[in-house]
Amino acid sequence: MKIYLDCYPCFIRQALHASRLAGGSFSRQHRVVIKTMTLLGKLRPGITPPEIACRVHRIVRDEISATDPYQEIKHASTQAALGLYPKLRQLVSGSKDPLDTAIRISIAGNIIDFGVSERHHDLRETVEKVLNQKYEIDDGAALRLKLQSADHVLFLADNAGETVFDRILIEQLPIPVIYVVKGAPTLNDATMEDALAAGVDSVAEIVDNGADAPGTILSMCRPEFIDIYKAAPLVIAKGQANYESLSNAGSKIFCLLQIKCPVISKDIGAAVGGIVIRQCTAD
Amino acid sequence: MKIYLDCYPCFIRQALHASRLAGGSFSRQHRVVIKTMTLLGKLRPGITPPEIACRVHRIVRDEISATDPYQEIKHASTQAALGLYPKLRQLVSGSKDPLDTAIRISIAGNIIDFGVSERHHDLRETVEKVLNQKYEIDDGAALRLKLQSADHVLFLADNAGETVFDRILIEQLPIPVIYVVKGAPTLNDATMEDALAAGVDSVAEIVDNGADAPGTILSMCRPEFIDIYKAAPLVIAKGQANYESLSNAGSKIFCLLQIKCPVISKDIGAAVGGIVIRQCTAD
Repeated sequence: MKIYLDCYPCFIRQALHASRLAGGSFSRQHRVVIKTMTLLGKLRPGITPPEIACRVHRIVRDEISATDPYQEIKHASTQAALGLYPKLRQLVSGSKDPLDTAIRISIAGNIIDFGVSERHHDLRETVEKVLNQKYEIDDGAALRLKLQSADHVLFLADNAGETVFDRILIEQLPIPVIYVVKGAPTLNDATMEDALAAGVDSVAEIVDNGADAPGTILSMCRPEFIDIYKAAPLVIAKGQANYESLSNAGSKIFCLLQIKCPVISKDIGAAVGGIVIRQCTAD
Repeated sequence: MKIYLDCYPCFIRQALHASRLAGGSFSRQHRVVIKTMTLLGKLRPGITPPEIACRVHRIVRDEISATDPYQEIKHASTQAALGLYPKLRQLVSGSKDPLDTAIRISIAGNIIDFGVSERHHDLRETVEKVLNQKYEIDDGAALRLKLQSADHVLFLADNAGETVFDRILIEQLPIPVIYVVKGAPTLNDATMEDALAAGVDSVAEIVDNGADAPGTILSMCRPEFIDIYKAAPLVIAKGQANYESLSNAGSKIFCLLQIKCPVISKDIGAAVGGIVIRQCTAD
């Protein structure tokens, strides 16, 4: 997905939030904001929002602290999600269509996203809503068909905490899963540590993509991951940043997400607040 | 009031919104955003948010169109407010404390503000809420005292449409009113044309301050206005931008506003959504 001008203020807000989480003084926060504006003033054509987010968070690390500013938030998100885990399992086992319920739960977990807003959402309320919501885009039938023919699925994770919700979905998938996390911290995206804390290792093989960028920017991933990606017969890609980086990367990819900002809403053609299963198109 | 880093993304959002209202192409919108970021990267110390807003809207006029981008929005706001006018008058005349009710109605009108968000608010709902709301800061007693001793009041207007709500308050003030509008269009701030469309001329003398900036930046106002301002025994200053430019300009000034953004909330010490009558302090 291309970058929209509406993303510019959002990146500055994100830079400022990350700077404050990292404990930066006013002057360092100011430098991060100035450097972010300089970056935004000189974007190369065709750059995607996750690539910019990656650079913004590198600026924060360079200017303030190399320690992950989102570590505490990610831990809290995972703990909150784990608190719901038994209830989420019950919802699936008591459901008439356990796979659909598990897909919806995984999409509900996508509300955890500190890239879009600083707000902590009520997870219970979100689950309740998403379980009864009509899909804005529903390529669920095509996804089920692919699940019948594929021998495994590559599951591209999004945020820490959301990992617990993904675990619920993985438990319902009929084929083995490789769960892909980030190679290094960026925003509140899940790393190996976050996936392990969510217990994903009990249901899937976990690999990291080698990148410190949100979404899946193949040019930034390690070669071993690229091979795994190319070999995958089916890819489930969670969240906005994966949509932003892979929306035109081919029909084996299915994006599962909540529409959380007007820019994605416009690009994908679904209302803010909507839930989506979207099979990607070829470039 | 000083500038906060949180204002930076807000200015870019505002620049983009104004560019679109002005009918700018993508490349012109992009140039406005880049120029706004350059401006924000080189702010002189001590600059206030309304001064920056003034320059942002000058960039829009220079890059896209000298015509007022907010003209249509302002007209629509005034018409919507005029539709409520008879009902608002009834509320005042049926009230136990007509002056307090009129003050509240004038503050309710302050919800009309396209500097803070692009949203059109439900005016009826806002009036209902503000009539029953507790003041977050209430220097109303001091204001009433000043109204007893002053021979006239200088009333610094804020936005078009809000002008109709101000007219309701002016009708209840026991002393003559000079109503001050902007000298040229900026954001959705009221100009002479907007005040006349609201019928303010039937209850007050209207003068313009000569400036094309939100709020009241004395260094940008025409000399004749400065004289009027200095001679005024009492000033009622509406809205966030007047608070931002006059918060420390002396005890004859009373700011009437709704708290619509986290930055003002932090600066003034009142919650977002709150209503305020605040006597200003000396610098």
